[in-house]
Amino acid sequence: MDDVPGALGTSASLALRLGQAIFSIASLLFMCLDIDFYSYTSFCFLVTIMGLVVPWSLTLALVDGYSVFFKRPSRQPGVMSVIVVGDWVLSFLSLAAACSTASVTDVLINSTSFCHSRMCSRYQLSAAMTFLSWFLSLASSLFNLWLLPSL
Amino acid sequence: MDDVPGALGTSASLALRLGQAIFSIASLLFMCLDIDFYSYTSFCFLVTIMGLVVPWSLTLALVDGYSVFFKRPSRQPGVMSVIVVGDWVLSFLSLAAACSTASVTDVLINSTSFCHSRMCSRYQLSAAMTFLSWFLSLASSLFNLWLLPSL
Repeated sequence: MDDVPGALGTSASLALRLGQAIFSIASLLFMCLDIDFYSYTSFCFLVTIMGLVVPWSLTLALVDGYSVFFKRPSRQPGVMSVIVVGDWVLSFLSLAAACSTASVTDVLINSTSFCHSRMCSRYQLSAAMTFLSWFLSLASSLFNLWLLPSL
Repeated sequence: MDDVPGALGTSASLALRLGQAIFSIASLLFMCLDIDFYSYTSFCFLVTIMGLVVPWSLTLALVDGYSVFFKRPSRQPGVMSVIVVGDWVLSFLSLAAACSTASVTDVLINSTSFCHSRMCSRYQLSAAMTFLSWFLSLASSLFNLWLLPSL
């Protein structure tokens, strides 16, 4: 296979997609479990975006898994363009959600009256997981963009 | 000229660069004048990033202006790569700064004790200007990226 590593249908892409899904689910769990996240707009934004990233990454991980273990699907330029644009948009939204969460947590930590025990460290972990998910999503998008002109 | 409109050395690129510089300067003015912005990390981050975007955009606007009104400079792939990567990084940092500022302003508005008269609307305007600057920076980056394979 003279493929770009990381493009749709390769094992590197499968690893990237699984990483995105795992980090997004971790971010959702840190944010949602036992915490009233809906009192701040940025936390609701993070939950919404991560709720979009998880099904997107899992679907593409299924496609990659099928492609790696069974037969290689034909790559049509239209489908690849949709995947590149989707990855792109989701990566920007993930970055926006991560930055919003991180900065709001910073403000909450500095004004100590808002921040109960363990809550703010969980917000921080959630923001960190979202940053990692953003990074992997950007990598997927760049690899697929690299492949696009050769189709 | 069979150029990509918006790539380095065209009049569209000159317009994009001037727009970036104007919006960044407006964002800096809204944030810095008469406001103690250094009490919040995200506001300091915004000022730092906008302080990087302004000289970068003005320098490239000078190059574009020279190219439009006098003679066209040779486009070397190495120089173009540096410009694309620089635009890319600055556009991500601008988006991060805009999101941080917007979300911190939202928290400050909801906890009314922090927000004195007119301060929060100026923070909001600053975030909006940064979003516009991000958008133009992303457009420049995409146009130059489009040109890169043909060099």
